[in-house]
Amino acid sequence: MLERDNRFQKQLDFIREIDKEKQIFRQTYIADATRKENDAEHAWHMAIMAFLFSEYANEEIDVLRTIRMILIHDVVEIDAGDTYAYDEVGKQSQREREEKAAKRLFGMLPEDQAKDLLDLWEEFEAGETKEARFARTLDNFQPMMLNDATNGIAWEEHEVAVSKILKRNERTPRGSVELWDYAKENFIEKNVSLGHIIDDREQESGGHE
Amino acid sequence: MLERDNRFQKQLDFIREIDKEKQIFRQTYIADATRKENDAEHAWHMAIMAFLFSEYANEEIDVLRTIRMILIHDVVEIDAGDTYAYDEVGKQSQREREEKAAKRLFGMLPEDQAKDLLDLWEEFEAGETKEARFARTLDNFQPMMLNDATNGIAWEEHEVAVSKILKRNERTPRGSVELWDYAKENFIEKNVSLGHIIDDREQESGGHE
Repeated sequence: MLERDNRFQKQLDFIREIDKEKQIFRQTYIADATRKENDAEHAWHMAIMAFLFSEYANEEIDVLRTIRMILIHDVVEIDAGDTYAYDEVGKQSQREREEKAAKRLFGMLPEDQAKDLLDLWEEFEAGETKEARFARTLDNFQPMMLNDATNGIAWEEHEVAVSKILKRNERTPRGSVELWDYAKENFIEKNVSLGHIIDDREQESGGHE
Repeated sequence: MLERDNRFQKQLDFIREIDKEKQIFRQTYIADATRKENDAEHAWHMAIMAFLFSEYANEEIDVLRTIRMILIHDVVEIDAGDTYAYDEVGKQSQREREEKAAKRLFGMLPEDQAKDLLDLWEEFEAGETKEARFARTLDNFQPMMLNDATNGIAWEEHEVAVSKILKRNERTPRGSVELWDYAKENFIEKNVSLGHIIDDREQESGGHE
């Protein structure tokens, strides 16, 4: 028996609770396009990208801190649900729902680990440290990569316009200029050319003529 | 554009290829028992356990190395498939199939990263370093935790006997005596008592009387 029983029970309860993340489905399809991806798979994929792509971070990062942040960044969606990147109504209440979820879920852990994970999640949300900036770059890069691999079906389903994608990615270069430059050309512009993303840029400039 | 194009293309091809791990289903059910778990979800869950449970490792471990090992430990199953713990026929050819898969899959990466990941995977397989021992303990602990959470349905489906579980877990205490002691009492013996695991121990000793 573990001597530190109460501590261990809290940790185990949290570990069992986060199993629910495997049932939180995103709008992105997995690469064979047979079904949508869930949050646990997304975090696993990003975590591997974090160490294989760390050489492209704008600044040298603490890889372990970045990976830990990535692994837990969507845990709040167990309570708050997945808010699609282009769901403007859902995004208004997102912050409040997620704050509450973070307190309940990370609060299941022993105090030291609860604080550690809550801090990590807040750091990811704020996106100011170099680790958080890089993690957020990957959080945008990974679904764009899958959208491209699936001929843009998620973009088409939601009739997404390129201006919204560019707006959402305003801060993506802050983690990695190299990854952003690649994504812009090979995921976004390519899929605009192919008609999978609506090009609303001409209309915009046209309105000012 | 990324200046290091060829290198990046190899990394990206690997990252896209391992998306297939999301379609490799295991024999374990997720905690709500609605469906089986896939390898990507299993690795994500284990990686979080690695840093929350590192205090229970028999020796102090390099958490980053352990997590990296965990994240990639089942990549080989993309080619080799999942071999169920108690599939004696499948296990005979498992090593050869997995070696070949490791060479092909990790070989997609630039040489330095290919070697790094192949070494990490070999280290996990050998189970000799303290990081590999702890990773392997979690690799057994995590499905037992889920089997217990689902009233042992995976054990019942396969009519698993306790002697086989104990045999498979012979090396589990080598990573963490504390986690093993907990698992033995609260996952294994509990489910023997409940009739979810076949108790073949009395028969065995009976045969020698």
